[in-house]
Amino acid sequence: VRPGSRALAISQDRLTEKIFLQGLGLGTAPFAAVEDLTSLEEALVDVGVPAILKARRFGYDGKAQVALDHAGKAAAALSALAGVPAVLEGRVAFTREISIVAARGLSGATVAYDIAENQHREGILLRSRVPAGVEADIARQASAAADAILSALDYVGVIGIEFFVVEEGGGARLLVNEFAPRVHNSGHWTEDACLTSQFENHVRAIAGWPLGATTRHSDVVMTNLIGSDADAWAAIAAEPTAGLHLYGKREARPGRKMGHVNRLGASRSRK
Amino acid sequence: VRPGSRALAISQDRLTEKIFLQGLGLGTAPFAAVEDLTSLEEALVDVGVPAILKARRFGYDGKAQVALDHAGKAAAALSALAGVPAVLEGRVAFTREISIVAARGLSGATVAYDIAENQHREGILLRSRVPAGVEADIARQASAAADAILSALDYVGVIGIEFFVVEEGGGARLLVNEFAPRVHNSGHWTEDACLTSQFENHVRAIAGWPLGATTRHSDVVMTNLIGSDADAWAAIAAEPTAGLHLYGKREARPGRKMGHVNRLGASRSRK
Repeated sequence: VRPGSRALAISQDRLTEKIFLQGLGLGTAPFAAVEDLTSLEEALVDVGVPAILKARRFGYDGKAQVALDHAGKAAAALSALAGVPAVLEGRVAFTREISIVAARGLSGATVAYDIAENQHREGILLRSRVPAGVEADIARQASAAADAILSALDYVGVIGIEFFVVEEGGGARLLVNEFAPRVHNSGHWTEDACLTSQFENHVRAIAGWPLGATTRHSDVVMTNLIGSDADAWAAIAAEPTAGLHLYGKREARPGRKMGHVNRLGASRSRK
Repeated sequence: VRPGSRALAISQDRLTEKIFLQGLGLGTAPFAAVEDLTSLEEALVDVGVPAILKARRFGYDGKAQVALDHAGKAAAALSALAGVPAVLEGRVAFTREISIVAARGLSGATVAYDIAENQHREGILLRSRVPAGVEADIARQASAAADAILSALDYVGVIGIEFFVVEEGGGARLLVNEFAPRVHNSGHWTEDACLTSQFENHVRAIAGWPLGATTRHSDVVMTNLIGSDADAWAAIAAEPTAGLHLYGKREARPGRKMGHVNRLGASRSRK
């Protein structure tokens, strides 16, 4: 099975994931395991507030997590998660959120797409912009983190890794937020701005093909169509620089990802 | 039914097609209808040699046609076509072969992709190159011919139109070779070099959507993988600028189109 069960086992448990990332020497938000009220109260001392209490498993798009602004709300937060094993994460004062989509082939070769800068709304990815407004050193750090994670997992396939950019002592530093062992929403722009999309590279990887080039031919902004956003599909389809992707879901519930649109900007000259 | 039965009726009969094109004031190779040896001998006088005797229906990729280099071979050519209704076409001394892929929407709006320059081998398209090495005036003539054909047919969908470029009296002129009422092999480069491919624009047209932009972001050469050419798929997949498309046909017979590859060149700057 590719990518392999280990990547899944680690990434589907927020605590295991953070311990794995720390073991690779990668920065994360401060965190502590939470089993009950006692451990949550200890965690609040270690991690501090503001913090976020997250279920260790089965959370995505901001689901199964509770913000904790002061320690007096510990019991209420715990009961909101119905007592499932959790992790308390310190809220990070980040300046930007970025992500990298990378792939590792059967031979161990890796490729990475350009860094995307992400904007969330109510815990859900709203927009990814490429190029991201980050310095070259930050992009190198993200790429190195991707290589470390892919290699440690002996991974085969496409991975998406989300980071916080934090300013510390005059320099910018990366903290890994989480990784997803699959094609990633923040990489959907590759469908329209690259010769080889993340989807093709995932299939190439797991089929043992050489990985395709991740060269980007155009600047691009990917915007998720969430809930009723998708009602505007006809107007979007008429935009001259828009690539529209609808998922065919029948019902547009609030917060539900119904599709996305890639809006291309300037083409990039290639040597 | 879209594109509509009229486009099919005209384009599937080489004689009807040429009469239709002439009626629009578009240039074609000299031609004459052939029913039997008598009409073929008369046609040879009108059209001259060298010429090509083509079945009026069911010919593609150079099938069902016979070259006629001198009039003495008339009977042999006719029997090679087994007596089906035919058309004699004068062989055109062209300098280039080009094509345009265009689309017309339900509203009557038309779009066209950039002109491709085509190279055939044994009657089968081998390679399409974009940009084509033709002057702006030739591109305008091709685009105007596409508009005239689409409008006269009240067409809905994508069409492919092939032309010969001939030099006459110091200037270049276009002759229409034939048109195909569908997505066209010489437009397969649009899959990897444009935001909206010819396939998407065909679906948009027949579904009544606005047509997508035909802007090209990269230079490109499309090469058909004919017969055993497709055996090189693994090497092609490893090329950093190649988009590989295989059709999944089980048997690679000589002359059979097994796939194609789009090789991207420089990106184009867009304002």
